[in-house]
Amino acid sequence: MQDKQSEKDMRGIRIDKVGVKGLRFPIVVRDLAHRTQNTVATVAMYVDLPHHFKGTHMSRFLEVLHEHGRIIHVENLPEIAKRMQERFSSECAHLQIDFPYFIEKKAPVSQAVGAMDYGVTLQADTMKSKVIFTLGVAVPVTTLCPCSKGVSERGAHNQRGVVTVRIRARKTVWIEEVIQLVEGSASCELYSLLKREDEKHVTERAYDHPVFVEDLVRSVALRIKKDSRVLWYRVEAENFESIHNHSAYAMVESAVAASQQTGAASPSPGH
Amino acid sequence: MQDKQSEKDMRGIRIDKVGVKGLRFPIVVRDLAHRTQNTVATVAMYVDLPHHFKGTHMSRFLEVLHEHGRIIHVENLPEIAKRMQERFSSECAHLQIDFPYFIEKKAPVSQAVGAMDYGVTLQADTMKSKVIFTLGVAVPVTTLCPCSKGVSERGAHNQRGVVTVRIRARKTVWIEEVIQLVEGSASCELYSLLKREDEKHVTERAYDHPVFVEDLVRSVALRIKKDSRVLWYRVEAENFESIHNHSAYAMVESAVAASQQTGAASPSPGH
Amino acid sequence: MQDKQSEKDMRGIRIDKVGVKGLRFPIVVRDLAHRTQNTVATVAMYVDLPHHFKGTHMSRFLEVLHEHGRIIHVENLPEIAKRMQERFSSECAHLQIDFPYFIEKKAPVSQAVGAMDYGVTLQADTMKSKVIFTLGVAVPVTTLCPCSKGVSERGAHNQRGVVTVRIRARKTVWIEEVIQLVEGSASCELYSLLKREDEKHVTERAYDHPVFVEDLVRSVALRIKKDSRVLWYRVEAENFESIHNHSAYAMVESAVAASQQTGAASPSPGH
Amino acid sequence: MQDKQSEKDMRGIRIDKVGVKGLRFPIVVRDLAHRTQNTVATVAMYVDLPHHFKGTHMSRFLEVLHEHGRIIHVENLPEIAKRMQERFSSECAHLQIDFPYFIEKKAPVSQAVGAMDYGVTLQADTMKSKVIFTLGVAVPVTTLCPCSKGVSERGAHNQRGVVTVRIRARKTVWIEEVIQLVEGSASCELYSLLKREDEKHVTERAYDHPVFVEDLVRSVALRIKKDSRVLWYRVEAENFESIHNHSAYAMVESAVAASQQTGAASPSPGH
Repeated sequence: MQDKQSEKDMRGIRIDKVGVKGLRFPIVVRDLAHRTQNTVATVAMYVDLPHHFKGTHMSRFLEVLHEHGRIIHVENLPEIAKRMQERFSSECAHLQIDFPYFIEKKAPVSQAVGAMDYGVTLQADTMKSKVIFTLGVAVPVTTLCPCSKGVSERGAHNQRGVVTVRIRARKTVWIEEVIQLVEGSASCELYSLLKREDEKHVTERAYDHPVFVEDLVRSVALRIKKDSRVLWYRVEAENFESIHNHSAYAMVESAVAASQQTGAASPSPGH
Repeated sequence: MQDKQSEKDMRGIRIDKVGVKGLRFPIVVRDLAHRTQNTVATVAMYVDLPHHFKGTHMSRFLEVLHEHGRIIHVENLPEIAKRMQERFSSECAHLQIDFPYFIEKKAPVSQAVGAMDYGVTLQADTMKSKVIFTLGVAVPVTTLCPCSKGVSERGAHNQRGVVTVRIRARKTVWIEEVIQLVEGSASCELYSLLKREDEKHVTERAYDHPVFVEDLVRSVALRIKKDSRVLWYRVEAENFESIHNHSAYAMVESAVAASQQTGAASPSPGH
Repeated sequence: MQDKQSEKDMRGIRIDKVGVKGLRFPIVVRDLAHRTQNTVATVAMYVDLPHHFKGTHMSRFLEVLHEHGRIIHVENLPEIAKRMQERFSSECAHLQIDFPYFIEKKAPVSQAVGAMDYGVTLQADTMKSKVIFTLGVAVPVTTLCPCSKGVSERGAHNQRGVVTVRIRARKTVWIEEVIQLVEGSASCELYSLLKREDEKHVTERAYDHPVFVEDLVRSVALRIKKDSRVLWYRVEAENFESIHNHSAYAMVESAVAASQQTGAASPSPGH
Repeated sequence: MQDKQSEKDMRGIRIDKVGVKGLRFPIVVRDLAHRTQNTVATVAMYVDLPHHFKGTHMSRFLEVLHEHGRIIHVENLPEIAKRMQERFSSECAHLQIDFPYFIEKKAPVSQAVGAMDYGVTLQADTMKSKVIFTLGVAVPVTTLCPCSKGVSERGAHNQRGVVTVRIRARKTVWIEEVIQLVEGSASCELYSLLKREDEKHVTERAYDHPVFVEDLVRSVALRIKKDSRVLWYRVEAENFESIHNHSAYAMVESAVAASQQTGAASPSPGH
């Protein structure tokens, strides 16, 4: 049977990334309290392809993914990325999974319990013997506008925003730690279940802690900078403005990304 | 050359709708002031297929669409729907276009001018000699929570919401009329450009006009009911809650939809 | 503390649906083989609101949802919908959940095992003592064009399509049954993992079984019609055409929807 | 009136990008034949913010945008970016617009005319006196799998794919040039309107020109490399596989991006 992919290629162009994307797969994530939660990921898997090979055997990505059983454990990501390198005899491998993650939260006054969802991205990039592990968390928050509060006699416009943090660290940083750090920097955090007494609390809390998107990315960045585990970070904030039909946006990236990135040890993802 | 589509089908099943969707096409819309604006629509075109035909000649939808020139004028929608009936010898034809629509707006205090975008849907459904024309407009607004205001000592949570109105009328109802009616029912309307003095105005305006999604759909429905041109309506409101990671939603539909719909005259879309 | 929602409303307009949407929640689904799988749902919950009440207590939806534990079992949907009626003293309740569902599949020749994902919708609508349960399944398939095959000397264009089936039944119909019925009507079914010998098989299988979107909805409808459990159905097919930048679409709905719907018993969802 | 944004900030963190995104605005684009077309863009505008300023005056972005009239001409992008630098006294400015672009195309045999849509991104990034202009075009194409053709006795799976090219050039490269270059590298190009004789042509054309995503990015990259105007490029291809429920993906980026980028002259966008 013909093997087109293994034929020689004469165009002399190395491919940076080739593989599969948009694949859904059930996963298990371990949380900070060492309990596990089941969720569903969208998966992307790529390797590099030397200039002299015509193609990649795409089915091998699926085989590597299924080698670890019906459900992927997040702890196995760096191992899966290394397995991709072996299986494809490639220099680099890139594995990314995106999934919703749930945290049980008590409402601030009534203590009623509800589940809040966050968007998480885990990425393992290997180059030869190095593994760089990146954690991304998208945290929805309330933001109340300092300008609106300052100029108005009553009220202040506020809205849902989302803060997206990406970090590379030398030691495990937990999803819960990133969430806590962001929620502590916002006007108020979100809850799925709020009784009337809670609504009073979050309304007044937000009114007392106005933040611009600029404040939000700065406060989060400042807290991350102080964490000695972190090698690189990027913080983005987007406000779905309640007074406009567009968003306000701000982004800060740590300056020394490139050099630190190369020197990155292979941190265990932890999760 | 074989004509598979024209072959007989023996399964005895009439198809309600068959055609093309997700097609992008440049259009021209005429506004209330009889000026025109250029925009881009996403188009869906369907006809019914009697049980004895195997298939539809999909290229004919494109031919009908292009018969009216490089750019569709919205005035031509009912005519295009009728042309679809002729071309396919079908009983019914369904034509729907969705597009962004712009209105120039002055900020409430500074009078600074900015362009606001709205999502519009126009639909022409023909059955034999009848044409039913449906106008849909999605209007983004500010909503401020009456409960939050009522229980809190300061501030009140507010957010962007969107009100989606769909109406069938015996005479032309303009896009601008629907927008005005919805914006007048909300805590405040949105603007693309607001200076500091405007921000004070919209903040206080919203604080002074709190509405639940329930209030919003009721106020809009009440205004539409009083309009003798309208035969049928549906009003939906969705709030992208600033204190939750989910939406609040309400919907009201006029009770007499079915009968009025059948009796509907063929209103000119007007636009 | 003020209770705005419980105030009287004088506008005289009953609200058809009010509640929450876009809420994510972990769920457990039982499959045909009585094994369970964990996945994540997007939830919508609505009730009707009599004309004399100003508002709904939105937090109660969350309370009802959380009453059944940290993870919803799909078996509990009709019970949750009834609980919504009680809690809100409403005539109607509407509960809808959408989630990805996985099936382990063997490749047709190599028998290599891979996980395929499908989009499922479960809906429980109660009116007084009646419950109507609706199952929806979106099944991705390969479709190969009969016209293209008929007129061409070699090859035939084909593409990914998606068939969306919605049914109401008097007895449990399993997700797996709907998937099998749709996959048997397409040019070929999809797999996540295919080796070279499998790729030969699916290519030739599709080439030997060309179908238009019209064929697809008719074949599926015909099979569903023969199932005595089914009270109502709607079948849609959409082809993401490989030769166009738009889709081909067809839809068939069972004629006797309205009357059967009203007479529907309260089928257990089964899952 | 308070001016919160102009207050001092003590956190010592410079913000890389701050501004507005998700803003819709009508635009005019000039094509290769020097005719103009009207379309609608989604706009993002950012500047950097020195560490000592608390905030940005977001309304100024809208003022700059509206200074150039009710409709933006694409020729004005670098000028608008420079105006942003002036208005905010910033070192950098970033302006990005995304819009659908239409080309009239004749079917290959019948010569029937139809409009095809492409996704275009124009980006102007200024740093002090430098302007870097980036053109992005997303071109949908047909791809037919060489492996499937090679191993199968009849047929070959094919599907819609999309090739996304981004380039920086020292002289104007037209949108039409990028489209032509990509369409010439695919198994076949797409059309909105194809008669039966055309369908035969495109089916056989695709069957005779099988390409992997790897081939596609290499062929496109090779053609771009030969163009002396181009300073930097990235080529991505994604196939919406007809036999899987996920995509195949490949990406090539020119090696010398960083250095050339810095040295980039300020090319006029041309459009």
